[in-house]
Amino acid sequence: MNRIYLDNAATTPLDPEVMEAMLPYLSTHFGNPSSIYSYGRETRLAVENARKTVARIVKASPGEIFFTSGGTESDNMALVAAVEDLGCRHIVTSAIEHHAVFHTVEHLQKKHQLQVSYVAVTPNGHIDLAHLKTLVAGSSQRVLVSLMHANNEIGNLLDIEEVGAICKEYNAIFHSDTVQTLGHYPLDFSKKWIHFATGAGHKFHGPKGIGLLYVSDEVSIHPLIHGGGQERNMRAGTENIYGIVGFAKALELADAHLDKDKQYILSLKHYLAERLHQQIPELSFNGDWNGESLYTVLNVSFPRTEKTEMLLMALDLQGICVSGGSACSSGADMGSHVIRALRSTPGVPIRFSFSKYNTREQLDEVLRVLAQLI
Amino acid sequence: MNRIYLDNAATTPLDPEVMEAMLPYLSTHFGNPSSIYSYGRETRLAVENARKTVARIVKASPGEIFFTSGGTESDNMALVAAVEDLGCRHIVTSAIEHHAVFHTVEHLQKKHQLQVSYVAVTPNGHIDLAHLKTLVAGSSQRVLVSLMHANNEIGNLLDIEEVGAICKEYNAIFHSDTVQTLGHYPLDFSKKWIHFATGAGHKFHGPKGIGLLYVSDEVSIHPLIHGGGQERNMRAGTENIYGIVGFAKALELADAHLDKDKQYILSLKHYLAERLHQQIPELSFNGDWNGESLYTVLNVSFPRTEKTEMLLMALDLQGICVSGGSACSSGADMGSHVIRALRSTPGVPIRFSFSKYNTREQLDEVLRVLAQLI
Repeated sequence: MNRIYLDNAATTPLDPEVMEAMLPYLSTHFGNPSSIYSYGRETRLAVENARKTVARIVKASPGEIFFTSGGTESDNMALVAAVEDLGCRHIVTSAIEHHAVFHTVEHLQKKHQLQVSYVAVTPNGHIDLAHLKTLVAGSSQRVLVSLMHANNEIGNLLDIEEVGAICKEYNAIFHSDTVQTLGHYPLDFSKKWIHFATGAGHKFHGPKGIGLLYVSDEVSIHPLIHGGGQERNMRAGTENIYGIVGFAKALELADAHLDKDKQYILSLKHYLAERLHQQIPELSFNGDWNGESLYTVLNVSFPRTEKTEMLLMALDLQGICVSGGSACSSGADMGSHVIRALRSTPGVPIRFSFSKYNTREQLDEVLRVLAQLI
Repeated sequence: MNRIYLDNAATTPLDPEVMEAMLPYLSTHFGNPSSIYSYGRETRLAVENARKTVARIVKASPGEIFFTSGGTESDNMALVAAVEDLGCRHIVTSAIEHHAVFHTVEHLQKKHQLQVSYVAVTPNGHIDLAHLKTLVAGSSQRVLVSLMHANNEIGNLLDIEEVGAICKEYNAIFHSDTVQTLGHYPLDFSKKWIHFATGAGHKFHGPKGIGLLYVSDEVSIHPLIHGGGQERNMRAGTENIYGIVGFAKALELADAHLDKDKQYILSLKHYLAERLHQQIPELSFNGDWNGESLYTVLNVSFPRTEKTEMLLMALDLQGICVSGGSACSSGADMGSHVIRALRSTPGVPIRFSFSKYNTREQLDEVLRVLAQLI
């Protein structure tokens, strides 16, 4: 059975070109980058070249780029630093953040007795910016705003430059989980409207186990993980060289083909949306799917029936991989906290998420299987 | 120029068999293990099989095995948990710990106003167990003992079961950085004499960027990194599947050939020691090199002369990779804190560290080059 993979917001297959770039560092180029001899210098060079590549693409300086083990560690590091190093005593966030932020905020709230406010979310899943401004402006303490650039479940995009402007006006610290947008949208940190941003290699055809934390040089923080002097004393531990090389290569490829890939993937999203609407008129679309939304994500709710209740599993049996929400919580099987927060549709939510490797033929096959199943 | 790599305590080359085991997870088996469909189930299975393999080898239950991004993260997680979750207010450690412990203890001391005591070290680099007992017995607060199983610079081995017994007697928590011994010595956690132990894949021909934290099921702790429910809610973030698969495969291979490799590598160490002693009689050996010591490490001090001052670099120019101490601090170029703590030899310390891939011919070549250089 040929599998059809439509869960690219959970993870993406590694680009063969990225794999190619990584392989030398899995074999001959294995030195510890902290070692001073030739084996170490060649891997040190690879790490620093990767840092420069990433910095160039997000328009930051190499000194603002830190490699971590993934998006979750990066989010944790930023949030902990904002509270413990930058004096933020009030976190303004939303109920539709990824668990890497949501649960870390809960943990910090309890640990440090912080004030936490949740910005209102509009019915179609956008952050209410007027409410955000009220919350930040009305705070008597230094605020950390943590709002994701794009929601991983419904795809809604936030105007992060606007949020950055609000934060600047009130001297708040701004962190954004940009895991779903890095490698998919151009990010430009040169104008200093954000303090922390995060990325994960495996969301744009790079490797798992490697992440990015952008830290604006306007703030000075401590590490989350202490030890050796790696990452300029900011993230201890022997560098995951193949991961770092793969991350930079994947971002480079994504950036080089961004417009072409975007256009192609958006056409897939629109195609599937139109056909689904024709085929199952009772189906509803979650989030601002046809507006400010990731071109990689389409989240729909099927009318709840005996047949759609088990839709994920039925699709899996036909070799079709889609999800009901975030992979990070699907094991927990508690349904989506994002869909719950929207309180919109009583149906069965399914997230289709696309990559450059998907085709119209695959979508036709999905539509055919859905027609059979429902 | 053929390079001779004798810095295996810093990092080891990946075993081609390990690479082979990892490759499918870098290509076709890429699903997010938290996803419920087939792609996710096959990687979930790989992760849980890896956990079982590791558990079997260290004689733990799979529920006591957690995968992290490396030895440093594991050390940080254990130390933070002992202080923040288990109520330890007094840390007993040594001045010759790896920076992953040393600097993390310093950080925790400052953050939580902890008491920290440093156990005396004997002139040949062993932990003074009588002093340790006095410190633990005399404490009015709950103690965390953190002492490494084998010193990464001089190779001295600690009797960790004896330390575990002392800790048990006084209800202290015991953490050991076992990064240099996992995969090189049999570890048996079934007798519950230790609470936390750590490992790093790249120290035994596995991949970088992946580590182990053993947590005894006698203690209950919180995660260091919050977010999704991965690792049974103990370590959030999409799993580094290839890393996890590679870690388990490398440990399995190391365990299967442990005695044979040990015998072979020990013969290399003894061969080099004897020849060095004959060739340069003024040279001294650091640590208990011929007693309770890693078979993988030989640390010697060359008499300090104009020629030996630049020995590391001169050897590097001849394609020979050795180090002056820990790779994690060599970038800092401040000399070795371990050698300083021993206050023994005024010479120029060089660490030779061996693996199964080294040969006598390589050592002969090193001896030949040394004869030329000195």
